[in-house]
Amino acid sequence: MQTEQLDPDVAARLRRTADGLVCAVVQQHDTHEVLMVGWMDDEALRRTLAEGRVTFWSRSRGEYWRKGDTSGHVQHLRGVRMDCDGDALLISVDQVGAACHTGHRSCFDAFEVSR
Amino acid sequence: MQTEQLDPDVAARLRRTADGLVCAVVQQHDTHEVLMVGWMDDEALRRTLAEGRVTFWSRSRGEYWRKGDTSGHVQHLRGVRMDCDGDALLISVDQVGAACHTGHRSCFDAFEVSR
Repeated sequence: MQTEQLDPDVAARLRRTADGLVCAVVQQHDTHEVLMVGWMDDEALRRTLAEGRVTFWSRSRGEYWRKGDTSGHVQHLRGVRMDCDGDALLISVDQVGAACHTGHRSCFDAFEVSR
Repeated sequence: MQTEQLDPDVAARLRRTADGLVCAVVQQHDTHEVLMVGWMDDEALRRTLAEGRVTFWSRSRGEYWRKGDTSGHVQHLRGVRMDCDGDALLISVDQVGAACHTGHRSCFDAFEVSR
């Protein structure tokens, strides 16, 4: 059980931005609804895997942010997949309540650009 | 019909990286499978909306890239949504063939980090 460091095989596959981040797409495990997009560094991914609760890196606040700690809108981890070039993660979750801080179920409920 | 410039209301809502990009999550419209994540600048989004074919900005090659032009694996546009803070787009498509250059249907078929 690796809890203090991200699995080196996983870490070696990640292709990070200059800020050390990868894009994390969060999807409801059963409906496949895309709930939100956040950012993770290695430590956020390590915490997510170790705790079974999704943790992001907040670019605006410059701190780790475990989803639901203040809102109660917890994301229980169901699985994590990495894309072919290692710069994006697909996080399968069971979302409690609204994923979006606006109260919407999904952050993408906000604005329809085109249909 | 705005074809030479992105709709100013849409442009005003976008929150771009220092490189002028937003994250674009591509989802199959009927199965809701997440197929890939790419990047768009204003011009890539404008072309996508104008042509009904998904165009990305390739960070590695530094050029626009209309999905399927070389592979035939075209993404026909079904709709575009923007998230609450304007730094991510959810692109609904009808994907022809494999979305991933490896031949997989989804770029996230590549590697399972955790289940």
